[in-house]
Amino acid sequence: MISNPADITRFLHEKIPLARAMDARVESIGAKGLVITAPMKANHNHLGTAFGGSIAALATLAGYAMLWQALGDRDAHVVIRDSQMGFRHPVTGTLRAVCPQPDETELKKFRARFARAGKARITLRVTLEENERVCVSFTGTYVAIRGMTPLSG
Amino acid sequence: MISNPADITRFLHEKIPLARAMDARVESIGAKGLVITAPMKANHNHLGTAFGGSIAALATLAGYAMLWQALGDRDAHVVIRDSQMGFRHPVTGTLRAVCPQPDETELKKFRARFARAGKARITLRVTLEENERVCVSFTGTYVAIRGMTPLSG
Repeated sequence: MISNPADITRFLHEKIPLARAMDARVESIGAKGLVITAPMKANHNHLGTAFGGSIAALATLAGYAMLWQALGDRDAHVVIRDSQMGFRHPVTGTLRAVCPQPDETELKKFRARFARAGKARITLRVTLEENERVCVSFTGTYVAIRGMTPLSG
Repeated sequence: MISNPADITRFLHEKIPLARAMDARVESIGAKGLVITAPMKANHNHLGTAFGGSIAALATLAGYAMLWQALGDRDAHVVIRDSQMGFRHPVTGTLRAVCPQPDETELKKFRARFARAGKARITLRVTLEENERVCVSFTGTYVAIRGMTPLSG
């Protein structure tokens, strides 16, 4: 069971070298959702703003962390199936990705399907905001699988 | 002017810390397109396959590199505006992203718009294949801007 920000951060750093290279850290988990941050120093692009690839990676991690927490099962194989991203404004400071808790009804269905079938999918939304405006939006479909060879990255 | 794989790799590593952390390297550029690779060691996930965030970052870099090469202008500000990704199969070995040269007609229009207006957009496709099947597909819209504050990451 992964249940607090420090534990999830440690797990990400142990298991995913890029999470460590980005210095990604889960800041908080709660009823409002999950917040994960990464410093600009390790994540800028050729223009001095946040690199789109770092943003994509941080959003992907936000989804993983949300689902491990939601399932309460570290051994669940969580993979991403598809994603869409929109980059509206540059991120100029610390990268801060927020993944709101999924709708309670959807989450219940997801947990029930996972418990029954050992496999379930869910769509998560992640945003990066700065100066009170959404800079980047991410939508990802994730699949959780129990006791199977992983299907994707 | 960035014109060969080693120069583009050096430029990426100097300007984008994550490209260096991933050990991303442009392998070839030619009529068939651009190939950029990254070793599994720095880019695996919690399941031992390629991390979706690394794949997203590598595909994003492939698009940047393709456009710098296509424009022949290192000072062009190339940014990503949106992306869609599909993860069909896990990548289990070296990550190898291929960005085919855009259609010649589309590329001509893109170059002409950039020369005339100082701003142009183009859609690029990138795939990661393994064992002769497409594991991941990426479609990204990029914008090239001359002499302006960067708009996005």
